[in-house]
Amino acid sequence: MRYNSSEILAVVTDSERMVGNISSTSFDNVATLEEANQFSLIWIKPNKKNKEEIINNSIATVIVCDDSVAVEQINLLNKCLVICQNPKLIFIRIASHFFSQKFDFGIHSTAFVNKKAIVDPETYIGPNTYIGISKVGKGTIIHGNCFIYDNVEIGNNVVIHAGTVIGSDGFGYSRNEIGELEKFPHFGGVIIEDFVEVGSNTSIDRGSLGNTIIKEGAKIDNLVHIAHNVIVGKSCLVIANSMIGGSTIIDDFSWIAPSASILNQVKIGKNVTVGMGAVVTKSIPDGETWTGVPAKPMQEFLEIQKKIKALSK
Amino acid sequence: MRYNSSEILAVVTDSERMVGNISSTSFDNVATLEEANQFSLIWIKPNKKNKEEIINNSIATVIVCDDSVAVEQINLLNKCLVICQNPKLIFIRIASHFFSQKFDFGIHSTAFVNKKAIVDPETYIGPNTYIGISKVGKGTIIHGNCFIYDNVEIGNNVVIHAGTVIGSDGFGYSRNEIGELEKFPHFGGVIIEDFVEVGSNTSIDRGSLGNTIIKEGAKIDNLVHIAHNVIVGKSCLVIANSMIGGSTIIDDFSWIAPSASILNQVKIGKNVTVGMGAVVTKSIPDGETWTGVPAKPMQEFLEIQKKIKALSK
Amino acid sequence: MRYNSSEILAVVTDSERMVGNISSTSFDNVATLEEANQFSLIWIKPNKKNKEEIINNSIATVIVCDDSVAVEQINLLNKCLVICQNPKLIFIRIASHFFSQKFDFGIHSTAFVNKKAIVDPETYIGPNTYIGISKVGKGTIIHGNCFIYDNVEIGNNVVIHAGTVIGSDGFGYSRNEIGELEKFPHFGGVIIEDFVEVGSNTSIDRGSLGNTIIKEGAKIDNLVHIAHNVIVGKSCLVIANSMIGGSTIIDDFSWIAPSASILNQVKIGKNVTVGMGAVVTKSIPDGETWTGVPAKPMQEFLEIQKKIKALSK
Repeated sequence: MRYNSSEILAVVTDSERMVGNISSTSFDNVATLEEANQFSLIWIKPNKKNKEEIINNSIATVIVCDDSVAVEQINLLNKCLVICQNPKLIFIRIASHFFSQKFDFGIHSTAFVNKKAIVDPETYIGPNTYIGISKVGKGTIIHGNCFIYDNVEIGNNVVIHAGTVIGSDGFGYSRNEIGELEKFPHFGGVIIEDFVEVGSNTSIDRGSLGNTIIKEGAKIDNLVHIAHNVIVGKSCLVIANSMIGGSTIIDDFSWIAPSASILNQVKIGKNVTVGMGAVVTKSIPDGETWTGVPAKPMQEFLEIQKKIKALSK
Repeated sequence: MRYNSSEILAVVTDSERMVGNISSTSFDNVATLEEANQFSLIWIKPNKKNKEEIINNSIATVIVCDDSVAVEQINLLNKCLVICQNPKLIFIRIASHFFSQKFDFGIHSTAFVNKKAIVDPETYIGPNTYIGISKVGKGTIIHGNCFIYDNVEIGNNVVIHAGTVIGSDGFGYSRNEIGELEKFPHFGGVIIEDFVEVGSNTSIDRGSLGNTIIKEGAKIDNLVHIAHNVIVGKSCLVIANSMIGGSTIIDDFSWIAPSASILNQVKIGKNVTVGMGAVVTKSIPDGETWTGVPAKPMQEFLEIQKKIKALSK
Repeated sequence: MRYNSSEILAVVTDSERMVGNISSTSFDNVATLEEANQFSLIWIKPNKKNKEEIINNSIATVIVCDDSVAVEQINLLNKCLVICQNPKLIFIRIASHFFSQKFDFGIHSTAFVNKKAIVDPETYIGPNTYIGISKVGKGTIIHGNCFIYDNVEIGNNVVIHAGTVIGSDGFGYSRNEIGELEKFPHFGGVIIEDFVEVGSNTSIDRGSLGNTIIKEGAKIDNLVHIAHNVIVGKSCLVIANSMIGGSTIIDDFSWIAPSASILNQVKIGKNVTVGMGAVVTKSIPDGETWTGVPAKPMQEFLEIQKKIKALSK
């Protein structure tokens, strides 16, 4: 579907401004700079050099850029600019407004919902997904081949991608007198708060005593393991192939890079960044960036890398 | 359901003793110390300080603790203690006895079992699970969305969590004259012995020639990769996101921490501990603890960490 | 089914030769050297010592070996040899010819294919697999419990193992003014070219703008994460539990070892080898081998290991 550029005016706020040929240009797709055609909406990274030249050379119609662009150097005959401070964010908002896939709510014919489950009518439950004795909130989308055990509470506007398992028994054993493993029984559940997104093939275990909790707006990627009784804070990002050990707490706004592993029973502070492949064996204070195996504060890690590099010469 | 504390007497053995108000107290839930109410069964970690004070301050009814607790300092009017050497283990036994979920055996209406499969009538096969030309033993629970290929032999009292795949082709290729990959055909199977537990979204490949074997009582966590022809020994623990390379053998009672990777064709001894995130590239003798990238004996690893730390100052 | 050894003559090419009792021996299984019986087809690794003794002691009927074997020392009364340069490869070809499982094409009764999907009639779609508005080519096998979203193009002769998810939304967010995460919309798709194989429980995300591409003959193992807009080159191997970050390009014939992590937006050259558990944070030139955390060229890695080892003494 093709939209007139002026329709974007309804989406932008006072912090953004539109210039150029707004009234007689139109767009019907979003694209990268490289793949854009004459009906594309694109964005330009603020750190690019010669943005004016790039914009003049592009045939895209609508270009979202930052306010360092010298507008007077742009030929605005056949294009328009959306000028703002954070072009990626504003591009996201415009693109989502015009092109996001709308889901028809409903339960797919091959899905199976336990009779005792409480599922809001305005949800989408995908093919071959199973919902146990659990709750699913309004506006929530659970894609196909997911398995939601009993005792899981999923909030509103949550998205869960295919193949994800939520609420399986956590992994807790005690060796008995003869070395055999006896299992710690799991009586807790899982709470997934509003606006959480969970990727595909991820596993979130139920609490043993008490709950595993993913707080509002947190985003969990694909193939992530969240053990029993973990708490993931608000708007945290836990990226692909990460492993969060049992009873560990991650405070709000933290960023766990791909393939990181975090020991059980530690406390990761607010606004913490954990590096890719880091093996975290201790608690991390608020605001710090740690990486390495075992993980250390970034400054110390870099210092060690420098010294090690010097060693090898 | 609420139980009189005296009913616990039927579960405890000669190694444990119960003291306090056994006859007129009762419990209906298990909880953590922090979340207990006046009908809770809880346990106290032996390494806590001031256990007597903790116990006196708790409103829990039944408290499992170790024998270092000074019983004469406890107010036993409204509570009773189960005193033993390993409180976690005894708590597990009591909690499991009274509160474990009982599964009704049967095959879910959405499961699909191949006509040539041999499935004991006393098993539970969950929603959307597929069983190929394979065997499933008595008392075994296979949760939903699992996929069991042909040629898999699953023993008695096994538990397999949702989304797990057992018996897919292993990954073995040979480059031909022009660099293309030709696949090593897989004719083997998988043997899962009695009392094994497998987590969710785990992948266990079939043997190429010969079988992949998970021995009695071993516990495999979520998102673990077990390659073709691996042997996991009795009562081993292989924790989340670990990767065990092809034809590697792990001997009995070993402990593979989360996110560890073990090269193909190595031999991990008995009672070995592999640390979190370790990258194991060699065989490990019985009883040793290895960690790091590449993994080394713990003593050497700690020594190196100390020296590296000194370097950076 | 049992075959006369002479039937192998139809499979071998001019580069191989068969000697021994070809006419009156027969075989009905493939096996390892250790588990062979008198109807087995086996192969011998070229780097074994005393191959002549090993072959004479084996009761296997057909033995594929390299041309360093002194044929005059072998008792060929009841056996025959296939002599070649690459015994593993020739064994693969013979074993595949006689024993590979043939799939009956068709869509399993429990699979669900979107009406707008374009699926070649000569494909196999397994139990509980879902195919969205996507294409599936001729000779392709998609095992059970897979989930193929919309906008995925799967070529000919592709194999996808159980539980794999292809085409879910990639993971891209931008923090807004108040720290909340807003999602980068995903409009791209996934292209899986001919002769690709994908393991079980793997996740391949769709492109955000533009496509994620797995090129001809590439092999992806179990539990691998392929992020949005990744390109995996021809005949590459990406082994279990690996993580490939968004927009990263891996050129042809490269080998990514298990549990490796590769940062987003880097470029891995042709014929590159990335070691097990490596954490790759930079682009790697053609032909190099990198390993470690963070990954470095192998020579540098080994030098550092040596120096670190010396330190600890």
